[in-house]
Amino acid sequence: MKQPFPFSAIVGQDEMKQAMILTAIDPSIGGVLVFGDRGTGKSTAVRALAALLPPIKAVQGCPVNSAKPGDVPDWAVLETKKLAEMPTPVVDLPLGATEDRVTGALDIEKALTKGEKAFQPGLLARANRGYLYIDEVNLLEDHIVDLLLDVAQSGENVVEREGLSIRHAARFVLVGSGNPEEGELRPQLLDRFGLSVEVASPKDIATRVEVIKRRDAFDNDNAAFMLRWQAEDAAIRDRILTARKTLKRLKTPEKTLHDVAELCLALGSDGLRGELTLLKAARAYAAWRNDTALTRAHVKDMAPMALRHRLRRDPLDEAGSGTRVARIVEETLG
Amino acid sequence: MKQPFPFSAIVGQDEMKQAMILTAIDPSIGGVLVFGDRGTGKSTAVRALAALLPPIKAVQGCPVNSAKPGDVPDWAVLETKKLAEMPTPVVDLPLGATEDRVTGALDIEKALTKGEKAFQPGLLARANRGYLYIDEVNLLEDHIVDLLLDVAQSGENVVEREGLSIRHAARFVLVGSGNPEEGELRPQLLDRFGLSVEVASPKDIATRVEVIKRRDAFDNDNAAFMLRWQAEDAAIRDRILTARKTLKRLKTPEKTLHDVAELCLALGSDGLRGELTLLKAARAYAAWRNDTALTRAHVKDMAPMALRHRLRRDPLDEAGSGTRVARIVEETLG
Amino acid sequence: MKQPFPFSAIVGQDEMKQAMILTAIDPSIGGVLVFGDRGTGKSTAVRALAALLPPIKAVQGCPVNSAKPGDVPDWAVLETKKLAEMPTPVVDLPLGATEDRVTGALDIEKALTKGEKAFQPGLLARANRGYLYIDEVNLLEDHIVDLLLDVAQSGENVVEREGLSIRHAARFVLVGSGNPEEGELRPQLLDRFGLSVEVASPKDIATRVEVIKRRDAFDNDNAAFMLRWQAEDAAIRDRILTARKTLKRLKTPEKTLHDVAELCLALGSDGLRGELTLLKAARAYAAWRNDTALTRAHVKDMAPMALRHRLRRDPLDEAGSGTRVARIVEETLG
Amino acid sequence: MKQPFPFSAIVGQDEMKQAMILTAIDPSIGGVLVFGDRGTGKSTAVRALAALLPPIKAVQGCPVNSAKPGDVPDWAVLETKKLAEMPTPVVDLPLGATEDRVTGALDIEKALTKGEKAFQPGLLARANRGYLYIDEVNLLEDHIVDLLLDVAQSGENVVEREGLSIRHAARFVLVGSGNPEEGELRPQLLDRFGLSVEVASPKDIATRVEVIKRRDAFDNDNAAFMLRWQAEDAAIRDRILTARKTLKRLKTPEKTLHDVAELCLALGSDGLRGELTLLKAARAYAAWRNDTALTRAHVKDMAPMALRHRLRRDPLDEAGSGTRVARIVEETLG
Amino acid sequence: MKQPFPFSAIVGQDEMKQAMILTAIDPSIGGVLVFGDRGTGKSTAVRALAALLPPIKAVQGCPVNSAKPGDVPDWAVLETKKLAEMPTPVVDLPLGATEDRVTGALDIEKALTKGEKAFQPGLLARANRGYLYIDEVNLLEDHIVDLLLDVAQSGENVVEREGLSIRHAARFVLVGSGNPEEGELRPQLLDRFGLSVEVASPKDIATRVEVIKRRDAFDNDNAAFMLRWQAEDAAIRDRILTARKTLKRLKTPEKTLHDVAELCLALGSDGLRGELTLLKAARAYAAWRNDTALTRAHVKDMAPMALRHRLRRDPLDEAGSGTRVARIVEETLG
Amino acid sequence: MKQPFPFSAIVGQDEMKQAMILTAIDPSIGGVLVFGDRGTGKSTAVRALAALLPPIKAVQGCPVNSAKPGDVPDWAVLETKKLAEMPTPVVDLPLGATEDRVTGALDIEKALTKGEKAFQPGLLARANRGYLYIDEVNLLEDHIVDLLLDVAQSGENVVEREGLSIRHAARFVLVGSGNPEEGELRPQLLDRFGLSVEVASPKDIATRVEVIKRRDAFDNDNAAFMLRWQAEDAAIRDRILTARKTLKRLKTPEKTLHDVAELCLALGSDGLRGELTLLKAARAYAAWRNDTALTRAHVKDMAPMALRHRLRRDPLDEAGSGTRVARIVEETLG
Repeated sequence: MKQPFPFSAIVGQDEMKQAMILTAIDPSIGGVLVFGDRGTGKSTAVRALAALLPPIKAVQGCPVNSAKPGDVPDWAVLETKKLAEMPTPVVDLPLGATEDRVTGALDIEKALTKGEKAFQPGLLARANRGYLYIDEVNLLEDHIVDLLLDVAQSGENVVEREGLSIRHAARFVLVGSGNPEEGELRPQLLDRFGLSVEVASPKDIATRVEVIKRRDAFDNDNAAFMLRWQAEDAAIRDRILTARKTLKRLKTPEKTLHDVAELCLALGSDGLRGELTLLKAARAYAAWRNDTALTRAHVKDMAPMALRHRLRRDPLDEAGSGTRVARIVEETLG
Repeated sequence: MKQPFPFSAIVGQDEMKQAMILTAIDPSIGGVLVFGDRGTGKSTAVRALAALLPPIKAVQGCPVNSAKPGDVPDWAVLETKKLAEMPTPVVDLPLGATEDRVTGALDIEKALTKGEKAFQPGLLARANRGYLYIDEVNLLEDHIVDLLLDVAQSGENVVEREGLSIRHAARFVLVGSGNPEEGELRPQLLDRFGLSVEVASPKDIATRVEVIKRRDAFDNDNAAFMLRWQAEDAAIRDRILTARKTLKRLKTPEKTLHDVAELCLALGSDGLRGELTLLKAARAYAAWRNDTALTRAHVKDMAPMALRHRLRRDPLDEAGSGTRVARIVEETLG
Repeated sequence: MKQPFPFSAIVGQDEMKQAMILTAIDPSIGGVLVFGDRGTGKSTAVRALAALLPPIKAVQGCPVNSAKPGDVPDWAVLETKKLAEMPTPVVDLPLGATEDRVTGALDIEKALTKGEKAFQPGLLARANRGYLYIDEVNLLEDHIVDLLLDVAQSGENVVEREGLSIRHAARFVLVGSGNPEEGELRPQLLDRFGLSVEVASPKDIATRVEVIKRRDAFDNDNAAFMLRWQAEDAAIRDRILTARKTLKRLKTPEKTLHDVAELCLALGSDGLRGELTLLKAARAYAAWRNDTALTRAHVKDMAPMALRHRLRRDPLDEAGSGTRVARIVEETLG
Repeated sequence: MKQPFPFSAIVGQDEMKQAMILTAIDPSIGGVLVFGDRGTGKSTAVRALAALLPPIKAVQGCPVNSAKPGDVPDWAVLETKKLAEMPTPVVDLPLGATEDRVTGALDIEKALTKGEKAFQPGLLARANRGYLYIDEVNLLEDHIVDLLLDVAQSGENVVEREGLSIRHAARFVLVGSGNPEEGELRPQLLDRFGLSVEVASPKDIATRVEVIKRRDAFDNDNAAFMLRWQAEDAAIRDRILTARKTLKRLKTPEKTLHDVAELCLALGSDGLRGELTLLKAARAYAAWRNDTALTRAHVKDMAPMALRHRLRRDPLDEAGSGTRVARIVEETLG
Repeated sequence: MKQPFPFSAIVGQDEMKQAMILTAIDPSIGGVLVFGDRGTGKSTAVRALAALLPPIKAVQGCPVNSAKPGDVPDWAVLETKKLAEMPTPVVDLPLGATEDRVTGALDIEKALTKGEKAFQPGLLARANRGYLYIDEVNLLEDHIVDLLLDVAQSGENVVEREGLSIRHAARFVLVGSGNPEEGELRPQLLDRFGLSVEVASPKDIATRVEVIKRRDAFDNDNAAFMLRWQAEDAAIRDRILTARKTLKRLKTPEKTLHDVAELCLALGSDGLRGELTLLKAARAYAAWRNDTALTRAHVKDMAPMALRHRLRRDPLDEAGSGTRVARIVEETLG
Repeated sequence: MKQPFPFSAIVGQDEMKQAMILTAIDPSIGGVLVFGDRGTGKSTAVRALAALLPPIKAVQGCPVNSAKPGDVPDWAVLETKKLAEMPTPVVDLPLGATEDRVTGALDIEKALTKGEKAFQPGLLARANRGYLYIDEVNLLEDHIVDLLLDVAQSGENVVEREGLSIRHAARFVLVGSGNPEEGELRPQLLDRFGLSVEVASPKDIATRVEVIKRRDAFDNDNAAFMLRWQAEDAAIRDRILTARKTLKRLKTPEKTLHDVAELCLALGSDGLRGELTLLKAARAYAAWRNDTALTRAHVKDMAPMALRHRLRRDPLDEAGSGTRVARIVEETLG
């Protein structure tokens, strides 16, 4: 298997890269929704980030990548429970995947041939401790998206049917890409994604040439190219690992909470998920910057990606939702 | 498993909390329908209430949480019939659940492999003696809602198909949430919910900050937070237990019955379910207030949640149905 | 199991009660269709009538409630053929019931596990000698309604498929309720119901209070309430039993037949089912009144419930179909 | 089983009765389509005609009612091949019947349990040598109607699937009823029915009273009523049997063929099925009248029922198709 | 089994008969599409042509009618491989036939009961070396038509699924009938039929009387009728057999190829199938006429049936497509 | 099996032939989409190209045509692992093919009869190292196209369901044909095809005559015709083999990358796939021309087929997308 494209070699797309880094610092921020043109490297970026993170230790062959022998689910029959390193998993959820394939299901073949009720784990099992990527999430059936967001939030996959009653850990970051021109997600679902970012093809020739050159080098001169970016990827990895520690010590002043609430109220975002996500994203961002306390500046910077997808549609306002968020941030927090 | 958010720590949303408390005092009031914005803590509130109630005693491993060994259905094969304490169950009904999954069905695997006709209990079995929560009930198929309301009313789940003839107790309170902007329930179904309430995000900053702070404390400083609200939850629990006793002794003067009928007639609510529910809700409310007799005031206070969802739509009246109920209460009962 | 609400304690709704009583005197009148508001006690009334009738004698455990050991179908394997008393059966036909569930079907489990072709009886078997109740019959699929009406008319359920060739008695009165605002039955199907009645919520406060009081007493003081109405229910039962005998001796003068035909012609009701049903209903009514001969008055009284659902829709006539029948009765028979 | 209503006791509906009698004289005329109001005794008439015909001799228990032991299909396992008398079969084709149920199919149960490929005969087998009645044929799926007409025409049912290759005799007259207001048959299918007739409720009171009286007598005084009409039914039977013989000797003058062709051309009926059917119907009619040669009068009398359903719809001509046929008969043949 | 109607006794319909004869001379011309009124003898003509052709020699019982023992597919288990004569097969493809039934499929019964993967041949196997007739081809599902045309073109049926990998010869002429008023074929499919003809009922009385007389004689005096036309059928058969030989020696001058191309270009028919078909049809026609070289006259005569169904629809040109072809033939080739 | 039509004997259609040759030089260019009239030899061209390429060496009987014994997947049970020559595979994907048939699936028959979980390879397995041809790709279901493009890009088929976890090589060039008048592909899918070309029937008579003559010679004088074109096909084959080597040494000047980016930006093609494909196509084209460095001229020549299908639709610009590309190439690169 060829290694993914290096994360640090991705040209531009800073907001998308920032959002993904934040989920690596604090996965409880929730999934990332990436809107935008096709061919802008959404799938590449997820794979790149996962490849950059340190390998995880997992019980060999464990269907849910358990970190300790004691975490292996009792329905998994393994020959050994030795630990081994494996890359952070990235699982693709194909369009048209059935609920059974996603959650796992009764292993029909064993039931028919051995008279034994065994569990056949699904994509959610394989995504545990990693990333689940859905291309064109807006084309997925609602009840599947629903189910994915439920599991992503609870960190546990519960399968109860046909005499099975199975639970297993399913902690992953959901990354969905979508082209808003091809169908929309229900507001109910949008709200349950943590962050959203917009990506676009670069508009200047120098950048585009740079993109082609890097891609071409990756395809045709792979070894040299990977070596060239190794150090930069390592630097990002180290900074993420540091930020995870910084986050635990970070201070959250009362007045910043006030900023968060005021901003969400001004934006008219329904419910309280927006506030909580903005708070978490701003904290992870502060930690990434190695700051010791949360400030209004962190909140302002993170507001677009935390709130953009939670605005009610305003037919009289032609501006994109990102622009509207930025404007109201300016008016509210100065 | 982390404990649910404390019921008493929920900021605001008094009508929703009141409705849920009433169903804990008198479950025969019927289900509660919660309309409103996403992210307003509907699901949190159900879980919180159930966690606050005293644990129930049930036969260990009994699929319907039977209170006595003699109540265990004969199709349930248990190793022991000892009693143990368990929390009041809260069962989630996922969108897209099939009838088989809800009611239980033939255990296909046993039929195929052992030639034995066994019953595989469903979600209704697990909800017995507790709460059944449906998020976005307006997106559920009508025949499933119908079935749920039938069982909720009769307290018994009857499964008759494929050679099975199974009955088991299924006494639970149905709590459904719905966003009226995303699809409506048929009047037939609306009428069969006991109460309905409307919830909205708080509109003042202080409240919102309070919500975020509590949620943040719950997430990041859980032990201290749970301790902080323990006494308040206990106080509510004791008051509910007292109200259950008070309810049995409560007096219902003839003239209050007259008030109930006059009000429903003025509102033009079809059928008599509205009257009976209003009567029950007003009584449970009086018991909650520790009053000894039902009065017009109790009826007036409970009218909106008992009748709001039973009005015919009036295209000329822009006011929400809650407002219309309140206005007619004023006109009729002064 | 709690006993049903007493038939005689139902407040008002005289036409519905009369129609149900007629079917108890002469079940060949055919089914009853009840149109009207929800919550007006349609389902309660069917159960109440069945509970009031004398228990039937049936072979113990017989799937079709056979009156004699010799009537037990040969596909039913019983341990004993002793007779025992059982209440008149009332079977609910749930929305979404499949044809297999209604008519019975091959017992798949036995076929698979024992290689034996056994019949699994359906709802029609259980309804034999009793009532089959369908809530919201207008929402049922046409082919199921069709099948039900066929069986109700012939008194026999014939199942021929997958190598089965089964017949069993299925004599029952079909009672369907429907809200005409939610979908209509095809004229073909309407015509095959014997009678139809309209019910509505009472519009005066005294009646409504009475309804609530009785219901409340039934719920909260059940034993006393049942005792209170026992004699009145017994009186109705005796009168029905007497009427069944009277009916056999009743005279039908030629001129009354003439009245029936003239009325149906004036109403423009298609086909002859209307005439035959009106004749039967008027006779049963005369017997209920303990009269010795059929008169024009009986015909006039029964015309609305026998003919109302057989009128062609007249877009220029705003009056309800009941009113139209009454007007034409007046014009034709004076 | 109660005997059907006597054919001769049917009041009026002469065209329908004539058409059915013709198919009893010459079944190769093809099926009869009966259009008209509900409740006009369409189904009654088919059953009555079949009951009036002499019993047929058939091998006992033979699934296709074979006339001789040698005709029993080899897939039918019988204990005896003795002949016995049985009434002319009348088979009902229920709405929603599947192709398997109509044509017969693999006996799944035997295949699964005995590893044996057996044929499970369908409704077409049972209809052999009799009548197949379809109520509301316009509501049946096209491919089923198609299949029925194919078999009715060829007299043979061929089942080839799942490793079966079965043929059996299926000679029957197809009688379909339909209400043209509820959906139409494709012209392709209409054309393949031999005859069509229109029925309506009688419009004068004396006739209607007579209908009710006869039906009432049939229901309540069955034995006497059956006796009353026995001789008249026998007379019709004898006349049919005589006509069958007369038909073989009937002369068909060239000029009458010319009349037939001229009439069909004037009517613009597509294809030649109309001509052939009209010829056969006119001959059977001449035989029924015991005439020795076919004349223009016979053709004129039979034209409406042979051609009415073969006209192209003419949106400018308000007259019913029967009237149009009659008018053109007048214009063409004088 | 009664013999089909004699081909030579079909009155008129010369274009249809000519097209069918051409496919008997050169089956590689491809299928024939017959448009037109119902009842014009389309199905009769196919059967008649096949019956007129000399019997084929085939291995007894071979499911694909193999001409030599060595051609019997290895999946066919035969008791003998002796040759026997059989009539040219004509297979009907019923509306609603599934892909499995058409192509053949896994023999489920053998798989289940014997654990053996056997092939159950379909309609395509039986049609090998003969005709496949589809009534109302425009009502068939596109993917079935597609599949039929693929096989008709390649002469081979390939079935690859469920572990089967079966090939067998399937050389047949496809004849489809359709009523253009009832639904159209996609241009993609139309283009893949070789020839198309239009049929209509005769419009003069003498012809119609002749048709009826012949049909009547065929039905009622079969033996004499068959004898009467035997010699004429034999003459056609001999002429076909001669033409097959003539075809091999036929000369094709360059200028006639030029005519073909010029004509197709003028007609604007897409693609090159039209040209190739016209060339083949004109050659077969020349052979039928026993000419030694292809001339412009042959091309002109065959143009309508080879090209009519390949024109783009022209909404401004009211003339039928046959007329348009004829007009452009005139303009282009004089 | 008859050999395909010779590639070099295809008259005209130079752009289509060029595109196919490029994919033979560098298969990583991705699939080819061929738009245009029916009957223009799209399918013929794919088969012809594959037949012209040198045979591949593959393990005998290997379901994925493995080049070495070590590449044979472990689920394939072979009797021998000897190498043998086979033609470059061309696999047809039929309309209506299911996902199971495309990707392979559990071998149900083995599971049922032997209790063994075996993999039944699908069309993707057979296409490995060759071509996969889809006629009318615009009529295929989106999720199948999606799946095909995913596999074509990754070169690997991953099947994970029902307890299977199978991977096998699936490196092939996807060629799809489509008629844009009959339904469009989503832009998401269009973008993932490497090249697109437009084909049309020739418009001059000489060419058309030439096409017919060659086809006719191929059909009727096959041996001589194949011999006639053998050398020309061999010349193309040799040139392709040479170009594959040239490609590896080809120089790509920075300014040409600049040209590529400037052109794509001017065309407003979303994403970067267009740039990368244009770069690859231009390089393969330079290699085909045996040039040593990439120049602007190569880019200009290949721009239409690499970019045409990636333009946004412009409702104000009537010109075809090919024309628009050419115009902007002129404006941008001169």
